[in-house]
Amino acid sequence: MRKGELTRQAILDQATEVASRVGLGGLTIGQLAAHTEMSKSGLFAHFQSKESLQLQVLEWAHDRYVDLVVRPALSTPRGERRLRVLFDRWLVWATEILPGGCIFTSASFELDDQPGPVRDALVRYERDLLELIATVAGTAVGEGEYRADVDTEQFAYEMHGIVLAYHHASRLLADPAAAERARRAFESLVAAARAGD
Amino acid sequence: MRKGELTRQAILDQATEVASRVGLGGLTIGQLAAHTEMSKSGLFAHFQSKESLQLQVLEWAHDRYVDLVVRPALSTPRGERRLRVLFDRWLVWATEILPGGCIFTSASFELDDQPGPVRDALVRYERDLLELIATVAGTAVGEGEYRADVDTEQFAYEMHGIVLAYHHASRLLADPAAAERARRAFESLVAAARAGD
Repeated sequence: MRKGELTRQAILDQATEVASRVGLGGLTIGQLAAHTEMSKSGLFAHFQSKESLQLQVLEWAHDRYVDLVVRPALSTPRGERRLRVLFDRWLVWATEILPGGCIFTSASFELDDQPGPVRDALVRYERDLLELIATVAGTAVGEGEYRADVDTEQFAYEMHGIVLAYHHASRLLADPAAAERARRAFESLVAAARAGD
Repeated sequence: MRKGELTRQAILDQATEVASRVGLGGLTIGQLAAHTEMSKSGLFAHFQSKESLQLQVLEWAHDRYVDLVVRPALSTPRGERRLRVLFDRWLVWATEILPGGCIFTSASFELDDQPGPVRDALVRYERDLLELIATVAGTAVGEGEYRADVDTEQFAYEMHGIVLAYHHASRLLADPAAAERARRAFESLVAAARAGD
């Protein structure tokens, strides 16, 4: 049982990397067998179906996102400092952790027309991410660093746009200025939210 | 010959719609045959290969983008008015023209790890789009509406991020506030660029 769970986790690690390159929708048990040393029947025993595999990959990627991005942010003091850690870690997550970049981003544009449980799960994760940004921006309002009338959902929308533009500029265009531009955009967003601006 | 060209264009129209839903990488001659009344051999006669089909779909979509977004902007007087037409038309293009939304956006996140001529063509189109925004923002600088020190490439990066966030919020999350948030983000960007701000 314990060994089975370890095996499952090792496979999920590989499956997440494959999905980040070929797209979550392209991740089938057959595809995964071709990228690992496991047989299709062995993989079926772990994951039952393509859909179940895709859902478990999303959950696995989300756990890694929480460890690498959310947790470090939440262990930073409330306010803009926390927001900066969230943004910095997110840029790293967007392009450096998985070989194909952030799997939530690519899946967001891949699966938007494909109704079903995988899309539903993705929507929940994406809503959580946007709410997290809004909540963390809210701590800067609570600490008096940002104006009381800052619309934190709007802030989240705009910060998310910066990260999407960064993913695009960095991974598709290989623009050497991608990170610098993302940081400048973030500084404008933060400056506009500061009290007295 | 003329009839062949008309047929080719009618097929490309359908192919672009299919690609916007299943992803450009998922568009094969077999897929297209399943969505049209044409035989695979008839489609092969028009397009020769999957890669050639995908390249022609990109070119076809780009022509439509030029007609629907670029041309109306360029026939508007230089300056912020032109930029607003570009932004407004682009929001429409991003989500309403093709059944699966802007094909350049989904292909950008789908093909970023798939080297080859299709990705290369996509990169050229995306660079052109970003340069177009920068150029149009530059007309607002030239007209004295925006500060002389506005970094128009940075402006393009941020405006592109707003459109990406809009595509995501509108098509994946079905957020009813998506367009309103995009417009507010654009107004902040424009306000920051205005002379005297």
